[in-house]
Formats: sequence, structure tokens, C-alpha cells
Amino acid sequence: MDINIIKQKIEMIPSLLNEFGIDMWLTFVRETDVMKDPAMDMITDRGVTWQTAFIFTAKGEKYLILGSLDKDNMLASTLYSDEEIKTYVGSIRDELKSTIEKIAPKSIAINKSADDIMSDGLTCGMYETLCEILKDTPYIERFVPADPIISALRSRKTSVEIEKIQKAVDITEEIYDKITKNICAGMTENDVANIVRNETKDRGLTSAWDSAHCPGIFAGAESAEAHAAPSDRVIEKGMVVHADFGVKFEGYCSDLQRTWYIMKDDETDAPDIVKRAFLALDDSIQSSFKAIKPGVEGRLIDQISRDRLKAHGFEEYPHALGHQVGRSTHDGAALLCPEWERYGQRPYMKLEEGQVFTLEPRITLKEYGAVTMEEMIKITADGAVFLSRPQRELYLIKR
Amino acid sequence: MDINIIKQKIEMIPSLLNEFGIDMWLTFVRETDVMKDPAMDMITDRGVTWQTAFIFTAKGEKYLILGSLDKDNMLASTLYSDEEIKTYVGSIRDELKSTIEKIAPKSIAINKSADDIMSDGLTCGMYETLCEILKDTPYIERFVPADPIISALRSRKTSVEIEKIQKAVDITEEIYDKITKNICAGMTENDVANIVRNETKDRGLTSAWDSAHCPGIFAGAESAEAHAAPSDRVIEKGMVVHADFGVKFEGYCSDLQRTWYIMKDDETDAPDIVKRAFLALDDSIQSSFKAIKPGVEGRLIDQISRDRLKAHGFEEYPHALGHQVGRSTHDGAALLCPEWERYGQRPYMKLEEGQVFTLEPRITLKEYGAVTMEEMIKITADGAVFLSRPQRELYLIKR
Repeated sequence: MDINIIKQKIEMIPSLLNEFGIDMWLTFVRETDVMKDPAMDMITDRGVTWQTAFIFTAKGEKYLILGSLDKDNMLASTLYSDEEIKTYVGSIRDELKSTIEKIAPKSIAINKSADDIMSDGLTCGMYETLCEILKDTPYIERFVPADPIISALRSRKTSVEIEKIQKAVDITEEIYDKITKNICAGMTENDVANIVRNETKDRGLTSAWDSAHCPGIFAGAESAEAHAAPSDRVIEKGMVVHADFGVKFEGYCSDLQRTWYIMKDDETDAPDIVKRAFLALDDSIQSSFKAIKPGVEGRLIDQISRDRLKAHGFEEYPHALGHQVGRSTHDGAALLCPEWERYGQRPYMKLEEGQVFTLEPRITLKEYGAVTMEEMIKITADGAVFLSRPQRELYLIKR
Repeated sequence: MDINIIKQKIEMIPSLLNEFGIDMWLTFVRETDVMKDPAMDMITDRGVTWQTAFIFTAKGEKYLILGSLDKDNMLASTLYSDEEIKTYVGSIRDELKSTIEKIAPKSIAINKSADDIMSDGLTCGMYETLCEILKDTPYIERFVPADPIISALRSRKTSVEIEKIQKAVDITEEIYDKITKNICAGMTENDVANIVRNETKDRGLTSAWDSAHCPGIFAGAESAEAHAAPSDRVIEKGMVVHADFGVKFEGYCSDLQRTWYIMKDDETDAPDIVKRAFLALDDSIQSSFKAIKPGVEGRLIDQISRDRLKAHGFEEYPHALGHQVGRSTHDGAALLCPEWERYGQRPYMKLEEGQVFTLEPRITLKEYGAVTMEEMIKITADGAVFLSRPQRELYLIKR
């Protein structure tokens, strides 16, 4: 965890509060070892035990109210000064209430969002406690969702953040090259997964998400399609194999997918349908990539990708075209996704410079399994650039 | 993660629902890699990406409704059968609503608790989504808190769970013995911490809580008192040193504290005040231990401990006497704690057979730092037994 990045994020907060017309932002948490509000990533490198309030104002003030025994740990992180930290023993009530009354905010952003889990760290029980503490004040009526602030903090990557993500991408590609050199018929999904696990471990890194299904290795039509652990299924000639993984480099993630075809003894190329699917995906990725720029709604980019697949005679994929990547693999609110209810308001959010997205359409072939590539791009002032080297050719394996 | 333990927990659910008079229990989650409802520990060994509903009924039915691409991973865990799993692509709405309407429960327990974080995994945004989906039904009015169910699942330890905790305790004591053999003036807090880190790693285990402050090593009066990372502060003769750590063994935690006194060259014993503090703590632990049995409220046990310290002329500690331990270091709702507002209803919960608690009073001596022992006990049918070998003598170090 790079403390300087968190310092930069904290410094961004007053201007974000002003940009969104919000007077005060409150992150209200406890026992973050057990369940951590994702917003904590942006404002501290430490955990807390008892009820704790992180308060930021549009005027640039910071307040941190926490249980007495958590203080020394927080002080040691140097993000909050002795004057900014208040402690309590019996109850957070008085200190929290009086601090809010002193600030007298017209609006208080709280971490509540139906659409974006990164902005939804406030639990029902903590919300109830907060309302109880503020019950005789006008402040409950002034709650607004913190998602614009949290989303901007996560999305608007600093150059140091982009460097770390780029490094995670580069390493992931190195490991993919290793797979391409070694994959062959007779290996199991787990054998391929072990290449990834060993290469990741040798570099002192960890998987970008739950190591139970990162890497995911999917061999042939009988394999699970996504989000599943590698199995002892044997890779056979005539199978499409795809992999999905990323690494975490200094707190920042990558997330890429690649596809191979394992040729039969009498083949010199992949079957026609596999080649057609690959080309359709390539077209889908390149076409949507070209349309990405700040100000466009994510749903429009997703639609381009879907339209291209349909133009090639294939079905739509049952998920979003792309998600943001950062400290988490699924990061930030804006999505490149269709207007499906499960995505709430996320398809309608406008893209911004500094955001990092995946592009990951997929075609499932009944006979062969899923053909899929996942690339990563960064949005620039007037377009986008690839952070990954896109897979433009199907990897043909003859061994 | 031992799948058989989760199986046993899932099998307990219908009888718990009947015991507490609740028709249905709903755990409603998403993106559990980012923020995981702690109740998930009791009902699955896998994570999910999209909105997911785990539903259990008093009649013994199970339903799992999830995004289509999460299905294979969940099926592979074998805890839910193909018939019990329903998937969706666009929205969970229809499947969730119709499932609840089919069950037609008179009460629906949801994971919302002001007092117990383990029972408070439902976020505000997910609650809002749930209410929106059920808006034209009578079911929102039938929500009740799931804390009795979750608390019982976590608290009522099976014999296999107790074995794992006992093993974690035994290993922690082995490591403490190593510290006692090696600690000396001139070592830093980090040197002592490295003994713990290496011994834990050599056994292929991890720390019981955040490795940033597990172990905690606290040397002398200037040291942080708790919840802080070890520093490069040098241990000097004439200092009280205490340590706080635990290990995780097959998913189950220990949490113990021990205290040493580093004698000056001309000393053959600890200073009188340090000895008195140690004896007061020992009395406090033994006295409260003797009063523990099922049916007693935790606050009464905590009070005995406080009273003993006061009888010896010392001040009360600024925290609870003891917390439950299990898959997390701070586990289960019932606490041995004072009636302070920050503890909500937890001091009033009755103790039950099978619960595992710490006993950890503390005395802070201005000149020397904190003297503290933390033991672990298990509640039996008519009392309690120690899982740890209590520290009954101050460790005197002359080197």
C-alpha cells in the first residue's frame, strides 16, 4: 500500500466535494478486519476496531473519531495528525454529534449506493446507529450518496497509479507468453494454472482476485465458462482453451483473458467457426475501443461491441463489456454495460479521463467452449490507449 | 476452509429458525471479493460476483439465486444442488420475488444488526434494492434481524471447530515459549515480532488478524498499548513487555497475550507495583473464569473482573473483558463487556455452551506500560474450561 497515493487521494477530497456541491463526507465503520468498507482504501492504510468516523469537509477539514485503543496505530500512519484525531471510550455519540454540529453541513455524503459496491460500505446496522445518534438534529435529512466522490477517487487515476497498473499488465502478459510456450494436449487445467501460480509467486506477487478462481483455466466445451476454479480436466487436441487472470502489483490489479486452440494431428489451422468467432471478437474489441472517449456513456460502448458480434452472426455475451480496474479488479462505478436492471445507473455514467477499463466480449461455441479475449485500456483526454498488447491472432498450438 | 463444518452449519439452520420462530433467512450479497458479508462464512466456501440471494427456510428448504456465470463455481462446492440453484442474466428481481412469494414467510431474517458486525453484512444499497424488489408485497414489513441465527451459528462450536481452535491455541503457546526463551534487553519490538512471524510461517500458518499488527509487541511505557504495529523501539532493562497475537489454523483463530519483565542488573525480581499488577490480573481472570456458565449475562462476568482490579487498587480497563473467538478473532455477538453504549445489547446476551471467549483484563502502569494476560476458555454445560494454559507467573527475564 503506497501511502503517498492515499495522501494524494485525501488531498483530492475537498475539491471533489466542491465539484459535486457536497459539504461533508462521512465514512462510518467498525471492525474493518471482518468487513471493510471499500472506501477505506482511499482514506487510510490502517484498520479500526471500534465504531470510527472519518469526516472530510469541502473547506478542507479532516476529523477522525475512534476508539481510544485504535489511536496510536492511526497516528503512526501519519495521514491524520494528533489534532485531527478524537478518541472515545464509552460511546462515539457525543464526539460524533458535536463534530457534525460544529461543521453544520447542508449535505452529508454517506457510503450508500444501490449500484456501486465500492460506494456501498455503510451497513444497515451502522446506518441505524448513525440515525439514532443524529435523531434530534436536522442532519439525517441531509444525507446524500457518496458515490460521486468515491467513484471519482477510484476512477481518476494518478500517474503513479497508472504506472503500477501498467506493471501488473506487463507481468500478466509475460506469464501469458509462458503459457503459450508451454501449453499442450495432455496437460490439465490445473497444470496450466500452476504455471500462473508459480510465476506469480516467483515474482513475490499475489493473484488479482480470489486465488480459488484466479487463475481461471477453461478447457473445452464441458468446462465451466467463468468464475470457477481450474479442475483436473485434461486438455485435448481439438479444444479451445481460455484463461482469465491478473496479478496485484503494489496494490494495483490487472485482469486479462487469452484464448488458444489446440490443433488436432491432421489440422494446420483452427476450425472455421473458431476462427470466425476470434475475428468477430477482435472486431468487437477494436470497434468499441475506437469509440471510447471522455463524455460518452458506457452503455454506448457496450452496444457497439454487441452490434459487431451480431453482425458476425454470433450471440450477445451475458455480462458487461468491461469494468474498471484499480485497487480491486472490479473497481469504480462507471461500467461499459447494457441497460440491464442489475447494472442500475452504471450504464449511464459518462466516461472520464484517467479511467482504466477492461474490454472483454465473449462468444460461447457449443462444441468448443468460450472464445474470449480481455484487454485493458486507459481513457485519455480525447480517446483511449491500450495498456495491454491486444491478442490479434488466435494462438494455435500443435503439440 | 473445511467444507464439512459449513455442511454442519447449514444443517443447523432449519432448527435454529424454528428455535427463534423465524420462517426464512435471507443473505443478500454481491461482489464478495470486495466486501464479504461475514455470514457467508457459515453458508458457503465460495464468493459471488453479481447480486446473490441465499435463502433458508424453517421447513428445511434451500434456494440459491445468482448470476449465471457464478453457477458452475457454486455447483462445484457441492453445498447447493443443481435443483437448489436458480440463475439470472438481466436482473435477480423476478426469481427472487417469486421465490419469496412461493415460500410466503411470516418473517424474513435479514443480516442487519446495530450491535454485532457479524450479523450486519447487509449494506444500505443492497437493502434499498431488496425493498425496491419487494415494494408491492407484504414482505418488507416482515423483516426481522438475523442476529440470533448468525450468532448461534458462529457461537455454538462443533467438536471439530473446538479441536481446530485448541490447535491454534497450542501453537500460539509454543511460540510464546520461544519468545520467553529468547527475549532480552537490546532486542527491538520488531525482533520479537520476527520470532512470531517466522514461527508462524514455518508452520505454514497465517496471523489470526491483520498482519500489520499481529503480532503486537509493546515494550515499556512509551509504546502504543494495543492494536499497533511493532516498532524499532529497543527493549531495555527495567521495562515491562507484552505481546498480543494469534494464529489461524485451518480457518480458526487463537488470540493470547503474555507479559514479561526485563530485570535490571541489580534486580532479582520485578518492582513491587509490577508484581501487584500481575497478581491483580491473575485474580481478576481466575475470579471471572469461575463465574462463567451458560445462562449468565456477559456483563456480570466483566463486572467481576473490574471489581477485582478495583479491590486491588487499580483502574478499570477501557475495553471488554473478553470476546468470542472462532473463524474471526472477534467472533459472535455475545461479549463479556460493560454496559457501555458502544456495546449495544451485547452485554445482556446470555452465555451458551460451546462458546469460546477470551479473558483479557489489563492494567496500565504509567512508568512501565501495560501489564496484561489474555487467556481463552470454552463454556461447558455447567461452567468453563481453559483452552490456554493461563500465565500464572510473571515471566522474569535477566539477560
